[in-house]
Amino acid sequence: MNETIETLLNHRSIRKFTDKKLTDEQIHTIIKAAQQASTSSYMMAYTIIGITDPDKKAALAEVSGHPHVTQNGHLLIFCADLKRPVAQATSEQYEATRANLENSEHFLVAAIDAALAAQNAAIAAESMGLGMCYLGSIRNNLARTDEILELPKHVIPLFGMAIGTPDHQPELKPRLPISAVYAENEYPAYEEDVAAFDQELADYYESRSTNNRKDTWSEQMIRRFAKPMRMDVTELVQKKGFNKR
Amino acid sequence: MNETIETLLNHRSIRKFTDKKLTDEQIHTIIKAAQQASTSSYMMAYTIIGITDPDKKAALAEVSGHPHVTQNGHLLIFCADLKRPVAQATSEQYEATRANLENSEHFLVAAIDAALAAQNAAIAAESMGLGMCYLGSIRNNLARTDEILELPKHVIPLFGMAIGTPDHQPELKPRLPISAVYAENEYPAYEEDVAAFDQELADYYESRSTNNRKDTWSEQMIRRFAKPMRMDVTELVQKKGFNKR
Repeated sequence: MNETIETLLNHRSIRKFTDKKLTDEQIHTIIKAAQQASTSSYMMAYTIIGITDPDKKAALAEVSGHPHVTQNGHLLIFCADLKRPVAQATSEQYEATRANLENSEHFLVAAIDAALAAQNAAIAAESMGLGMCYLGSIRNNLARTDEILELPKHVIPLFGMAIGTPDHQPELKPRLPISAVYAENEYPAYEEDVAAFDQELADYYESRSTNNRKDTWSEQMIRRFAKPMRMDVTELVQKKGFNKR
Repeated sequence: MNETIETLLNHRSIRKFTDKKLTDEQIHTIIKAAQQASTSSYMMAYTIIGITDPDKKAALAEVSGHPHVTQNGHLLIFCADLKRPVAQATSEQYEATRANLENSEHFLVAAIDAALAAQNAAIAAESMGLGMCYLGSIRNNLARTDEILELPKHVIPLFGMAIGTPDHQPELKPRLPISAVYAENEYPAYEEDVAAFDQELADYYESRSTNNRKDTWSEQMIRRFAKPMRMDVTELVQKKGFNKR
């Protein structure tokens, strides 16, 4: 197994960091790695904002509800950005682009572009011995996050990433059996795999060193999905000119 | 610079592969690496389908229009999957989950989960000396792709990935200056960067060894966005129970 695959297989989300800040060189390397990810039709349809301003960090932590939004080595916010690709358009040209800017296809393109870049950033950070954690929680109040970042039309925040020197070492979190997630030529028949995983996870939750409890994956998911979440994302996304048709 | 960062910075999309098929072990490693990527609230909201059936490959190539959909070492299709997390729900529980299953937030969650997994797969493959290329082109006719793969409700194909032994070595494709994509605390002011990049890219296109032409990035983007594309994605996505509210 090569070093890169070892890094990939060794991922665990880090939610507690030391005070040590990333150096400018580390940040530069992480962003350059993000930029080299594949991008749909060369659109590079994302923007990354690094947050160092304490007021902005505190405001984002309030939306997110997680202490590692302020306590980390660096904080990145990944945004979907369809503004930049057409920034040079005349107003007439811009009108012609709107069908694409506002459709589901390009909402998807921008979200995927941002996620590919982000995962390269995550791997780059982890390869340097840093830890990281995604922050979907900035969508707890997407309109507020958008306001904090003062983003223009056709740009929306998608998720954050806290990076830093790990100050804890969580256990590797189990994943579904490979045959539940991957099959050849057809959609996987995963009933037995999911049942086995539910049992495995029940054992894991009961035995782990911190925060142990009785639970299965399926129960956790059904419970989580039962409560309508972030129903306001739709409105903000459309207001910013995405996913309207 | 460590080996992993070298791999990340050395990425170029490979669109021509030798006949050599991936081994089962290579496929297994690539999928395991994909699975270890971060996942929103542990949903693992994606499924990966490997295509080996020649008829299915040919049908997908017809949608995509690219020869590397059939000519590769292995073909993966990454799907957004919100079905599996609630597969164990009773019909009453399922009804309660629908507000989430069908909202924009969870469309985004599944797309991002799939993309994070895919980028890990890409990096794993490249770290083994393989090449890869994303295939957004399976969305040229998303309803047809969905039909070929016979995917159930709450599962949709998002993009493909051709992997294999490279049979060409394309130049590294330039990226926007880092300051156009990344800024601290505010949205980047990239006007000059984009102008400089347009000039750089014009030089690149004129000088590159194959397929040289006169073009800039901005002109390319405005041209591409001017023609409404994949406007049918919205309908298929909603028909499959995503992004409805």
